Parts: sequence; structure tokens; C-alpha cells
Amino acid sequence: MDPQTLFWLVPAASLIALLFAAIFFFNMKKADEGTDRMKEIAGYVREGAMAYLKQQYKVVAIFFAIIAVVFGVMAYFGLQNNIVPVAFLTGGIFSGLAGFIGMKTATYASGRVAEACRDEHDGLNRGLKLAFRSGAVLGLTVVGFGLLDISAWYLILDNTGLVQGEGVSKLVEITTIMLTFGMGASLQALFARVGGGIYTKAADVGADLVGKTEFHFNEDDPRNPATIADNVGDNVGDVAGMGADLYESYAGSILASAALGAAAVAAAHGTYDQGMQMVMAPMIIGAVGAILSVLGIFIVRTKQGATQSQLMAALNRGINFSGVLIALAAAGVLYLLGIENWLGLWGSIVIGLVVGILIGKVTEYYTSFEYKPVKFIAENATTGPATVIISGIGVGMISTCWPVLFIVAGTIGAYLCAAGGLEFSSANLSMGLYGIGIAAVGMLSTLGLTLATDAYGPISDNAGGNAEMSGLGESVRSRTDALDALGNTTAATGKGFAIGSAALTALALLASYIEELKIAAGRLGDADITLSLFSGPIGKGAEVATWDIATFMNKFEVTLMNPKVLLGIFIGAMLSFLFCGLTMNAVGRAAKRMVEEVRSQLADKDVLEGRKKADYARCVGISTQGAQREMIIPSLIAVVVPILTGLFMGVAGVFGLLAGGLAGGFVLAVFMANSGGAWDNAKKFIETGDAAFCGKHTPIHDASVVGDTVGDPFKDTSGPSLNILIKLMSMVSIVTAGLNIVFSLL
Amino acid sequence: MDPQTLFWLVPAASLIALLFAAIFFFNMKKADEGTDRMKEIAGYVREGAMAYLKQQYKVVAIFFAIIAVVFGVMAYFGLQNNIVPVAFLTGGIFSGLAGFIGMKTATYASGRVAEACRDEHDGLNRGLKLAFRSGAVLGLTVVGFGLLDISAWYLILDNTGLVQGEGVSKLVEITTIMLTFGMGASLQALFARVGGGIYTKAADVGADLVGKTEFHFNEDDPRNPATIADNVGDNVGDVAGMGADLYESYAGSILASAALGAAAVAAAHGTYDQGMQMVMAPMIIGAVGAILSVLGIFIVRTKQGATQSQLMAALNRGINFSGVLIALAAAGVLYLLGIENWLGLWGSIVIGLVVGILIGKVTEYYTSFEYKPVKFIAENATTGPATVIISGIGVGMISTCWPVLFIVAGTIGAYLCAAGGLEFSSANLSMGLYGIGIAAVGMLSTLGLTLATDAYGPISDNAGGNAEMSGLGESVRSRTDALDALGNTTAATGKGFAIGSAALTALALLASYIEELKIAAGRLGDADITLSLFSGPIGKGAEVATWDIATFMNKFEVTLMNPKVLLGIFIGAMLSFLFCGLTMNAVGRAAKRMVEEVRSQLADKDVLEGRKKADYARCVGISTQGAQREMIIPSLIAVVVPILTGLFMGVAGVFGLLAGGLAGGFVLAVFMANSGGAWDNAKKFIETGDAAFCGKHTPIHDASVVGDTVGDPFKDTSGPSLNILIKLMSMVSIVTAGLNIVFSLL
Repeated sequence: MDPQTLFWLVPAASLIALLFAAIFFFNMKKADEGTDRMKEIAGYVREGAMAYLKQQYKVVAIFFAIIAVVFGVMAYFGLQNNIVPVAFLTGGIFSGLAGFIGMKTATYASGRVAEACRDEHDGLNRGLKLAFRSGAVLGLTVVGFGLLDISAWYLILDNTGLVQGEGVSKLVEITTIMLTFGMGASLQALFARVGGGIYTKAADVGADLVGKTEFHFNEDDPRNPATIADNVGDNVGDVAGMGADLYESYAGSILASAALGAAAVAAAHGTYDQGMQMVMAPMIIGAVGAILSVLGIFIVRTKQGATQSQLMAALNRGINFSGVLIALAAAGVLYLLGIENWLGLWGSIVIGLVVGILIGKVTEYYTSFEYKPVKFIAENATTGPATVIISGIGVGMISTCWPVLFIVAGTIGAYLCAAGGLEFSSANLSMGLYGIGIAAVGMLSTLGLTLATDAYGPISDNAGGNAEMSGLGESVRSRTDALDALGNTTAATGKGFAIGSAALTALALLASYIEELKIAAGRLGDADITLSLFSGPIGKGAEVATWDIATFMNKFEVTLMNPKVLLGIFIGAMLSFLFCGLTMNAVGRAAKRMVEEVRSQLADKDVLEGRKKADYARCVGISTQGAQREMIIPSLIAVVVPILTGLFMGVAGVFGLLAGGLAGGFVLAVFMANSGGAWDNAKKFIETGDAAFCGKHTPIHDASVVGDTVGDPFKDTSGPSLNILIKLMSMVSIVTAGLNIVFSLL
Repeated sequence: MDPQTLFWLVPAASLIALLFAAIFFFNMKKADEGTDRMKEIAGYVREGAMAYLKQQYKVVAIFFAIIAVVFGVMAYFGLQNNIVPVAFLTGGIFSGLAGFIGMKTATYASGRVAEACRDEHDGLNRGLKLAFRSGAVLGLTVVGFGLLDISAWYLILDNTGLVQGEGVSKLVEITTIMLTFGMGASLQALFARVGGGIYTKAADVGADLVGKTEFHFNEDDPRNPATIADNVGDNVGDVAGMGADLYESYAGSILASAALGAAAVAAAHGTYDQGMQMVMAPMIIGAVGAILSVLGIFIVRTKQGATQSQLMAALNRGINFSGVLIALAAAGVLYLLGIENWLGLWGSIVIGLVVGILIGKVTEYYTSFEYKPVKFIAENATTGPATVIISGIGVGMISTCWPVLFIVAGTIGAYLCAAGGLEFSSANLSMGLYGIGIAAVGMLSTLGLTLATDAYGPISDNAGGNAEMSGLGESVRSRTDALDALGNTTAATGKGFAIGSAALTALALLASYIEELKIAAGRLGDADITLSLFSGPIGKGAEVATWDIATFMNKFEVTLMNPKVLLGIFIGAMLSFLFCGLTMNAVGRAAKRMVEEVRSQLADKDVLEGRKKADYARCVGISTQGAQREMIIPSLIAVVVPILTGLFMGVAGVFGLLAGGLAGGFVLAVFMANSGGAWDNAKKFIETGDAAFCGKHTPIHDASVVGDTVGDPFKDTSGPSLNILIKLMSMVSIVTAGLNIVFSLL
């Protein structure tokens, strides 16, 4: 079929996804909000969440304005396409909008989920459905807006005079320009993840350290002044933060694949039709995935009194159903598009899907208390907090092994399937890298659904909070607890999925950095550079010329023995540690202010004994300000270092930086996420009382609480922020490719 | 002057160093051993230490035997030079011997230092001198044996018919063969560091968790059954382990520089004389450093009642004196050798020396309680153990920034000085890499002295232990405490130095991996490989031919966009985490067994109340067995993974692995060492009582003890073990270069 015709599936799927998001949203709004007390609590959380978002968007707006100006100046000097300064904003706006809608939905939904759980006959099923479909609003808006942004810009660039050139050359130009739009989504994700991560853990650690440890309150005790901030934090981190993170991966992987596809066809001297097939494939697979995700959402349901594993099975049914359908549909799409090596590329997509599942499984193994590692940590609680920490760090570090091996095997597999071999020639390389990109698209094609399971977590967590604070009965709480426990498991596997897809996306972005360099060289029009790279400049209307990867890499001295490359790798690896350290300390500082506030409020006997209402708003304010203040420096570093590296060490240094940052950041992110998840569940295991040493409020339990508290910023702040760092550094390098070339050859 | 004549300085310096080591040893033995109780305690520690060494050498011998056979087989098939299987043993034997002598000295010395401190008039000075000169025995034997091994093999290879070829070609062959001897030292270091690290922390954590935390014993209370094991552990880790680690760096940096020097001259079509100058320079600078270190040792002395900073000044006087002299002498050596670019190379050496000092300073900043970071962690103890851990990890991660920037700036500086520019051409690269190698030699030239300050630490620590267990008076203990506190500071900076020199050495080894590949290609004699790399094969008596780095790297596809390289970087980064995680858990498991043993012994009221002697030997046995059992898997991984990577991903994958492992491992090692050191001193700061929240046996102090306990395996097991990992992986690749080529081209 004509790729041009199939393309219309993309805007169509976008509208379908957004339509169902709207339906789920309004259906949720129709549900009963419960008692006045429940409405009041939900209102606090909603206000806090909106206050935070407002503050964050203010800071983000300033950054966006500055960067748009910088891009404008770069465009003026021919270092960037003229459209980029404007288009980069749309990525940011859509990503922010998805986060906003997701947050609104979540904070409207949680009280209603608690209310649904009050139904003695069908409460669990109603709660699950309501929470899950509210979570799906985030999944579907992310996917919907992502596809909308991509398809709209494709139409504009293809049908106006903004891009010169024709044939494959035009496709190459369009896709490399579109790639730079991802920068907007990246920046939005940076602030959402870093700011959100700091917010949520400052509130959580602050609430736990005083409330739980000093006063032995239960979770969500209404006397604890930080309780509302803690509930807001769950949304800020796991709804807005997670959504923006995956929006970036989703858009980034599709855009990078499109650019790599056009480049592969150009390298092989293919036709325009072949180019279109390759460029359209990732977009259409994304579209089909979106539609099938909607179907999957309708499958998720359960019955009253369902066990934990039955609940899990209900979610898995939806995910597996969509996954299998997407895999089958992808084969159809590639075949219909008429791609010659459709079977090979299908192999790459399936590999991407499978790697995503495997990383999820191995994350579950290392972080669920059903398995040995978490039990090992729990046992170590018998000798006190120090051994809990040592064993948790040990387990987390060991757990990096499998995800890395999966990513390595998956990358090689995707390359092999797409390129038909591992030999390293220019044509082979281009196809192979396209295979890696499309594997990332495959992994992310189920996003509408997987993100729903992520956002489901904070909704049911907050439902539990609402039930506790509103004083609903035991039986209601047991139902919200069941929903919440399920959310904890999906949160851990969701994190693994987010990291894995970030790594594959970053690999694809790194690969497309070369394409940007080629185009930038062409745009600069320097005869010396362009002539030595191609027989004629690309992107100036000339024919696509012979291009040789080896010549190219030699030109910029990107060999591993170049000290600039080696030292770039050092700096990249260091940067991920620095970034983590800064965010860890940011949480520490913000949490300390929270602790002081909570202590001073609880010094009032009336507050402590529940006769006087705690001042929730002050705590919300402390978290909000802390997050805003503390996120500036790490964010600046992530943006500035790639530029400085390009300035001082040229293209060779940037390549090193990206490779080192990607590898180091990925491993560190897996370690932190898994250690954090394992500590969390080691504590929960001890609370179950399943082993001889278990039980609440014992010194052993206290020791496990220390592990859990340390794990909070590990798994919810620093670890996830690294997903952003590895993608953002590639993105920054992509948009400053022109500068890098100039610096390299000065 | 004729390089051949100056060469004799090397064996001469070796003998001088060994002679003074003997003098210091026998002088120490003449000192008074003190009371019977003191002799008894010292005897326990000595027996425990020797029992451990005996057990370790047994395991090591098995490994060495296996590997010697493997090398023999490789040599038979032309994949390795015939001499390597034999010569690799000497590096291992000399390294082991240095460790053995160092341990013997330390365990004889500590009781005598305690006795010297009993002198009311001059005790502090006598104690310092005795402890320091006993520590110098380790420093001088390491340097002496290192130079002996190198010079002896040079003489053998140069003067027998074992090596063919002539002129520069012969020098290239000799130096690349000698490089592979480093493998023996590497393997010995692996076992000493990993096994020693596990031993010392299993004992320490075990002793602290029960003795200090549960029973509130003081450090070194004789009722604590793990006390002797703890004292033995200090020696096993900081004497044998540190010595073997730096023996490897010392020998490795000299050998790598020599190989790179010969290669640089060959690449520039230089003469035999020029080749000799370059090959001799690192050896002779090492020799001059050894002699000047002896001088420096004699300068270290202090007066009774000296303050901490006066004691530190006494040590620094010796180090600065030697450092300045060595810097001056190096200029003389290079000038006398007649090296054309002597000034540039001198610049590289000075840069190496300065980087070593800077890394030490920044380590001090992040780990000493005089400065903000440690105080920040101490303050975080007011909110409990969790915030101590979070802030300590944050500080450690942030602290990686400066050492990486120093290494990066130093490497670029050393390259620039040696090559005269940063352009990336074959000749330029060879000289630049030689500059990096010789910078490492410069950094390590003060080793005789810096290692003395390292070994001084456990000696004075054990002296304190002996004083406590023998019930000597307050005033004696206050003097041993002063010596011990000084040892803690030198231990932290010494660790920084060890990591920094490991990184530079590993960089030099990585660079010389290329030289091994060239030689291996020549040895294999495959016309296709060799002819495409050189106009004629090297090492078969032919002339050294034109060689081009770009062609070479392209041949093996070592460009950063090759997925094999990228994925190699991933695996390398992951490997350092896996290795750390395994060693952390090893400590956890071994410590757990120790805790159980100590608890069961103290369950006996007679032991607890000091009426019955604790069974020290059982605890020593538990640590010994634990260390031996637990070190096998991490050690195997370090050896096997580079070989497997070569097998599956060829030379390109190996390059990626080494670069990723080096960068990731270095950053991780700095993080772990500094977090550990900072926790240790945060606890000490709280014990000083200098701030309002300070004081012993408070909940705040307890929280800081948790940090210290977690920090123990960080700074003394996993962190230092990474030094070995990064060097060893390069070494393994160097000795299996022939295999890598065969696999790459299959």
C-alpha cells in the first residue's frame, strides 16, 4: 500500500487515543465523590498538585523562552534550521499538557476510587476499573499528543516550502529537522522528572522520618502535617514525571527511527518510495499500538475478593493481549508498506517488545518479596540497619547484570535482523541502526497501556490515603490496600521499562546524532567539510552522495584511542554520578526542611492529639519550593555539559560523552531503581510476618524502614532522573550538532 | 649519556631500596617488645596474619599454575611469546613476597610501637619513627622488587637469543613481551585486594555490630572475640592488599611506558639510540624515585606532645622533600638521556606528580572532618541513620567530579606536552600516549614513600589495639591514638592516590594494548593481517614499517558507532557494578557468620565479663575461610569476561569493554572510597564533641555508626578492588591480544 495513504492512520490513531482519554475522564468525573470529608481531602491534594504544576510550568517557561532565543540566534547563523525555535516549543507544550491532564485526572480520581471501594459487592472490581481507566487517561494523552505533534509537523514540513530538496534528500532533511523537536519534550521531561522526583521524596521522607519513626503514626495519618504533601508527591512523581519521561522516549524513538530510516535509504541510494516506507514505519507502528492499547484497556477487570495474583493477572491479561496483537499487527504494517526486508525489521520490533518484557521480569525478580534477593535483604535486617543497606546496595549492583545483557543482546539482535549481518559497512550500519531505533519503537508501542498501569499506582495509593484520612472502615481500606499493593509491583516493573526504553531511545538518538552532523555540515555549506564527507552537500538540493562511515568518523577522529573520546567517556560516566549525587542531596536538604516543619507543628499537643487540624498547605509549599530551587543546578548541568564538551573537545569528545553517559547512566539507574525497590519490599516482607523474624514495630522492622527511606530517593528521584539525563544529553548534542562541527574544525 | 650505562641505575636502586628495607626491618626487630601480655597479643595477630597469607597463597598458587599452563598452550600455538608462561610467574612471586615481608614487618612492629609509646619523654617521636620506618619496609620492598624484576628481565631478553630482530624492532619486541609479565603482578593483586578486602571488613563489621552496637564495648576490647581478627584484617587489607595493588600499578606503568616509548620511536622511524632513550626513561625515573624516597624517610620525625597537624606536617615534610627532588631529578635524567623533547616529557612527569597530589587533596576535602562535606553528613545524623546514608551517598557521588576532571586535564596535558599538540596522527598519538604513560610513572615515582605512609596506618592502629588489650595506661593510649588518627588521614588520601594511579596506569595499559595487537599480528604471521597493517611484519626480523592508526582502527572497526564498541562500553560499566555488588555481598555474608560466632561466644557470661578468654582463633578462621570462598567468583569474572568479550565481539568489543570498565570503574571507585571515608570521619566528628549535637553513645552517634559500618566495605573492600579490576581487564586483554585478533578475523 502507498505509505502516504497509510500515514493517515497516525493522526487518526492520535484522535482515537485522545477521544478515549476524554471518555475515560468524563466517565470518571461522573462517579460519586463520597462523603464531605472525602471531598475535602481530595480537594487538598488537588490544590497542592495544581499549585506545584503552576510553579513548575513558570520555571519551565523561562527556560523555554531562553532556549528558543538561543535557537533563534543559532538559526540566524545557519547552525540550525529556522523552524526549530518554534517547533521545539510544541513538543514541550504537548508533553506538559499531557502531564497536566494526567495529574488532573489522577487527583479527581483517587477519592472516587476510595468511594467505589466502599461497595461491598463489587467494590474491588469497580475500584480497579476506575483507577485503571483513570490511569489510562495519562497513557492515552501521552500517546495521542505524541502522535499528533509528529504527524502535524510531518504534514507541515512535507507540504509547505519550509524544506528544500526533493526525493530521498528531502526526507532526510525533514526527518532530521523533526528530530530536533524532541528537544522540547526532553526539557519538559527534565523538569518534570527532576523537580517531581525531589518533590515527592522530600515529602515522603519528611513525612516518614517524623510521623512514622518518631511518633509511630500509620501511613496517611491525618495528624501528620506532611501527609497531603506526600499524597501530592505521588502524583507529581509517578504521574507527571513518569508521563513526561515516557513522552520523551516515545516521541524520541519514533523521530530517531524515522531519521535513521531516511538515512539508511539515502546511504543505499534507494528510491523516494523506499524512503517513505522506512520513515512511515515507526509512526504507523506507533499508531497501531495506540489503537490496540485502547482495546487492551477494556479487558482489564476483576471480581470481588480477588487475590493479589488475580489482580495482577487482570492487568497482565490486558498487557499481553495488546502486546501479542501489536506484534502481529506490526508484521502486517511492514508487509503492507512494501518494505523489502519486512521480516527482518519485524524481528527487530519483536526483539524490542521482548526485551521490554524481560527487563520488567528481571526487575520483578530483584524487587519483589516473592524471590530470594528481597528475602536476603530482609534477613539482613536482623543484624541492624547497616547490613540492610549493605545488602541492598549489593543486590542492586548485582541486578544491573541482566538488564545490561538484555539490552546488549537485544541491540545486537535488532541490528542483525535489520542489517542481515554484523559486518560494519556504511550501508549495513545505517540499516542496523534503523533496526535499533525500530526496536525501541516496538518496545514503546504498548505505551498507552503500560503507562496506564504506572499512573494507576499513585491513584490507588491516594485512594488508600483518602480512605485512611476520611476514616472509612477496615473493609474499604483492605480493598484500597489490595489495589495499592498491586500498584507497587507495577511501579517497580514500570521503572524497569522506563529505564530500558530510555536506553534504547538514547542509543537511537546517539546514532541519529551522526545524521544531524551530516545535515549540519551540509547546511554550513563549507566546501572543505562537505566535499570530504560527501561528493556533494546534502540538504542544499543536491543529490544524495556516496557517504562512508569510516571516512566520516576519521574526519572527526572518533576512534577509541583518541584521548578526547576516552576522556569524553570518563566525563560522561562521572556526570551520571554527579547528577545523582546532586539530586540525592537535594532530597536530603528539602526533606530536612520538611522534618523541621513537621516537628514544629507536632510540638503543638492539640495537633498531635488530633484536636486541631494540621497545616497541610505549609508542607505542600515547602516541597514545592524545595523542588523548584533544587532542580536548577542538576538541570543546568545536563544541558550545559554536552555543549561545553563540544566546545572544548569537538565531535570526538561529544561522542565519548554520550557513550560514557549512556552506559554509566543506564547501569547506575538500574542499580538505584532496583536497590530502592528491593528495600521497599524488604520492609513490606517484614510487615507481612511471613518469616520468623517478621512483625511490625520491632527493631528488625525499624532497620528495614531505614532501608526503605534510603531507597526512596534512589528509586523515585535519582534513578529515574538518569533516564532523562541519558536522553537529554543526546538531544542537546543533536540540536547543537552545527556548533560541534564548527568547534571541531576550528 | 649512554642510556645503556644509565640503565645500571635501575638494578642499583633496586638493591639500595631492598638494603634499606632490610636495615629498617632489623632495627625494628631490635626494639623492645614490651610486657608478656603485649607479646602474647602481638603473637595472636601475627599468627592470624600468617595463617591468612598461607591460605591465600595456596589458592593463588592453584590459579597461577592453571594460567601458566594456558599461557604455555597459547605460546605453543604462536598466540603468545614462549617466555611469558615462565616470566609471568616472577611478577606474581615478587609481588607476593613484598606483601609477605610487609605483613611480617607490620605484625612484628605494632607491639613494639606500643612499647615505644610508653616512653614518657620521647614516646610520640619514637613511636612515629618506628611505625613509619616499619611501614617503609613495605614501600621499599615493593619498589625494590619491582625494579629488580623489570631490570633482570630486560637484561635477560636483551642479552640472550630469546628475542629476534634488531634495532628499534627488537626494542619493540622486548618491551611488549615484558608488558605481559605484569599479568603476574595483576593476578596477585587481585587476590590480595579482593580477598584481603573481604577479610578485613568481615572481621571489622562483625566486631563492631556485636561488640560496639550490642554490648557497647570500646574498640579493641579484649573480651570481644573478633578483636584479633579485626587487627589482623587491618594488615591484610592495608598492608598486603595495598602493597600488591600499587606493585601492579608501579610495574604496570613502567612497563607500559617502555612499550609505548619503543612504539613511538618505531612509528617515527627513529634510531635505536632514540628507542633506548625512551625505553630507559621510565625505568630510570623509577630508580631515582626509589633512592630519593629513602632520603625522604629519614626526614620524618617529630617531638613529644606534637599536635595532629604537627604530626601531619612531619609526614608531609618527607613527602614534599622527595617530591620536589624527584621532579628536579627527572628533568636531569631526561636531559642526560639525550631525549630531544626532554622538556615536554618532563612536563608530562610533573603533571603526573601534580595530579597525584591534587587527587589526594580533593580526597582529603571530601573525607576529612575539617571541611564542609563531612560536617554536612554529621549534621544529617540528627535525623537518623537514613539521612546519614542518603547524604553520604550524595557527597560521595558529587566528589567524583574533581578527580575525573583532574585525570582528564592531566591526561590531556601529558599528551600535549609529549606530543606537542592535540592533533590526532599516528606519530603524534604514539608520543602522546607515551606522555600519558610517563605521567603515571611520575605520579608513582614517590611510591617508596607514599606506600610507607599507607602501611604506617595499620601498624599504629594495631599498636593502639595492643595497648588497649594489654591494659596500658591512658597516656600511652593517647599517644597511640594520635598516631592512629594520623593514619586515618593518610589512609584516605592514600586511597585517592591508589585510585588515581590505577586510572592512569590502566589508560597506559589500554594504549599499549594496541602495541600488543600489532606484535601479535606480526607473530601470527598471517600475510593478510600483517600486510594490511604494516608494509612488513614486525617481530620477524623485518624492518619496522609504516603504520597508520586510522587504518589499524578501521581494520578492527574500532569506531564508536560500531555497536560492538558501544555495547562493550555498556558491559564494561556494568561489570564494575557487578564486581562491587558481589564483593559487598561477600562482606555481608562473611560478616554475618562472624556476628553469629561472636554472639554465641558472648552468650557465655564468663567470656562477657572477662573471666574466660575469648576464642580469637575461631574468628580468625571464619574471616580467612570467608575471604577465600567469597573471592573466587568476582576474581573469575574479572579474568574471564575480557576473554569472552574478545571471543564474541572481537577487538572492537574489547576496546569498548576496557574503556567502559575503566571510566565506570574509576568513577565508582572514587565514589565508594570517598563515601566510606566521609562516613568514617562524620562519626569521628560526632565523637569529638565539637558541635552542639555531638557526643558518644547518643542516638545521633548511633546513626553515624550505621554510616561508618556501611562505609567499611565501600572504602576497604569494593572501592579498592575496582582499582584492580580496571588494570586487570587491560592486562588480560594484553596477554590475550593474539586470541582477540584471531577471533576478530574469523
